Amino acid sequence: MNIREIPTPALTIDLDVVERNLDHMAARCREYGLGLRPHIKTHKTPEAARMQIDRGAVGLTVAKVGEAEVMAGAGFDDLLLAFPIWGAGNLRRLAAVARQRRMLLSLDNEATARELSPAMTAQEASIGVLVEFDAGLGRCGLEPGPACVDLARTVDGLPGLRFRGLMTYFGSVWGNEEDRRAETERVAARVGRALSAFEEARMPVDIVSGGSTPSAPLAGGIKGITEIRPGTYVYNDINTYYQGVCALEDCAARVLATVVSTAVPGRAIIDAGSKTFSSDLLGSGPKSGYGYVVEAPEAKLVKLNEEHGYLDIAGSAHAFRVGEVLTVIPNHVCTCVNMHDEVFLHRSGEAAGCWRVAARGKIR
Amino acid sequence: MNIREIPTPALTIDLDVVERNLDHMAARCREYGLGLRPHIKTHKTPEAARMQIDRGAVGLTVAKVGEAEVMAGAGFDDLLLAFPIWGAGNLRRLAAVARQRRMLLSLDNEATARELSPAMTAQEASIGVLVEFDAGLGRCGLEPGPACVDLARTVDGLPGLRFRGLMTYFGSVWGNEEDRRAETERVAARVGRALSAFEEARMPVDIVSGGSTPSAPLAGGIKGITEIRPGTYVYNDINTYYQGVCALEDCAARVLATVVSTAVPGRAIIDAGSKTFSSDLLGSGPKSGYGYVVEAPEAKLVKLNEEHGYLDIAGSAHAFRVGEVLTVIPNHVCTCVNMHDEVFLHRSGEAAGCWRVAARGKIR
Repeated sequence: MNIREIPTPALTIDLDVVERNLDHMAARCREYGLGLRPHIKTHKTPEAARMQIDRGAVGLTVAKVGEAEVMAGAGFDDLLLAFPIWGAGNLRRLAAVARQRRMLLSLDNEATARELSPAMTAQEASIGVLVEFDAGLGRCGLEPGPACVDLARTVDGLPGLRFRGLMTYFGSVWGNEEDRRAETERVAARVGRALSAFEEARMPVDIVSGGSTPSAPLAGGIKGITEIRPGTYVYNDINTYYQGVCALEDCAARVLATVVSTAVPGRAIIDAGSKTFSSDLLGSGPKSGYGYVVEAPEAKLVKLNEEHGYLDIAGSAHAFRVGEVLTVIPNHVCTCVNMHDEVFLHRSGEAAGCWRVAARGKIR
Repeated sequence: MNIREIPTPALTIDLDVVERNLDHMAARCREYGLGLRPHIKTHKTPEAARMQIDRGAVGLTVAKVGEAEVMAGAGFDDLLLAFPIWGAGNLRRLAAVARQRRMLLSLDNEATARELSPAMTAQEASIGVLVEFDAGLGRCGLEPGPACVDLARTVDGLPGLRFRGLMTYFGSVWGNEEDRRAETERVAARVGRALSAFEEARMPVDIVSGGSTPSAPLAGGIKGITEIRPGTYVYNDINTYYQGVCALEDCAARVLATVVSTAVPGRAIIDAGSKTFSSDLLGSGPKSGYGYVVEAPEAKLVKLNEEHGYLDIAGSAHAFRVGEVLTVIPNHVCTCVNMHDEVFLHRSGEAAGCWRVAARGKIR
């Protein structure tokens, strides 16, 4: 069956493209001598994680305990939970996973470490800790320097915890290649400052985790990092494309949607809105619109309601008709995948089954 | 147990507020002599739908076949599917519901009617059709006038379909009270034009469905409509509040989130991002920010990543500390609820069970 015959709206995944994307990143990390610990937040799917591990990934990255549970339950080991988990209920579940699997957690403050420690010992579990520093995004993370060393020492003194290294996020590396190169230099300087503090303190650092998809092509130039944890690269999206980090044909995830109304002049309405795409705006390129219409790129997906997508077709020569199936590449594939209970697989358009998005909605 | 003790992030629902919101809208519709057919897209939950029916709602409104299946499966009858469904697979499922329950569907073009008819007859089902016209939003719907009558006649000539009336959406009624009043007058004129065309054609119209939450207080002034289908009013949100359509204390749905990092000066990071709130921007009031922080309204939720919320705390006197639980009212409750597998109920802060969001993610 051709994938275009499935009921719409539906999120489709081109497996040939996925394999190419995964091969490419695995080869890049080998070339750079970096471990690859993919972030599963993009696909949220054990089957895709398996393909990443099979290509040499050193482990997986997850964002919440629920994601860790799904991946541990699917048999994966060596999980980095790259989020400073808080709260008795969440930590109880985390400790249960950490009893069964090698786990790392990132944190940037003593209070979190002091909550984590008794939660681990209560279940006779232990966890490796990465101290998070801020490489420039201004989200989480200590200023690189002595404060990181102080926190690492505190962590090492707490039962059930072991300081394993440092973590940061290269989220500030964004935009066109020139912008990304310039920011990568600033990020590299901050990574260097963090590592210098540990050298001065003669404290060994096993792991230095950084990364993101847009920074991956430049990661080889950031001295001191040992592994990266890109997520988006498995499927790519229009944000990645507009940054020049992938080509359109590397975008494996595409929403099939049907034109359901052309009654209003200048408009075509599709059966996919913010509950299908997510309402994430484009953060790169033209910074407008909610997706890229493959069959008619001049048509702009200018607005989303929950189940309606508004195409402005005034600038398009395409003859839109009710019942026509369109292919739309989402702005941000990570939030788009999270809207879907399953994704529909194909190879060159020929349907090839589906994957349940097993970790969809795992916000805790 | 106090609701604030549950693991975060979590979407909580104040049942006392829900009951008050439902009572208020039911009383308003009785006063206006309008049928109330609530749109379940907001709560996506049979338990909330039951409370609406128990207060006199004439039926329910749904947006996709999957929502209809959930509500029909929970025993509800008289469902309006307010979306021009297309595609053999979707229509097959629709016909299966229509065999069991009284159903209405809106559409604005002949092609959709001609797809719908054989899908119904193939299962010996029938469905009522509302012809959709555009009251001013420019989304779906014919221009009010003779084209609506022509489509109604076509519908009535097709097996399995019966023309039942008209539908439109008052989505253009938005903003402060003055804006909403002015637009309501324009909407009323367009409703009048649609009805005049049917009067001239001597074609009876049973149902004239309009509505939305922001237009509800003004719906009594729109001559000719027989029922409205607001959705948001069950929970309300910050978009509703900034339009002056509800008070803050009428916002029943609130996200509990924990501060997990204060390492970056001027920032507090919470454990709820776009996968908890949705990334819907504020469409009313200040039109910036991703939610309203009850404990510290001067703190602005300026940015969301998938699992991180960025609070700009520079303008707030509140002393944010890691581990603190904050209460955030979402911008747009319909897309927020759709991120959650369950919502946590309380009365005056005392936990009162949870509801599964049974129709979450039903995009088809």
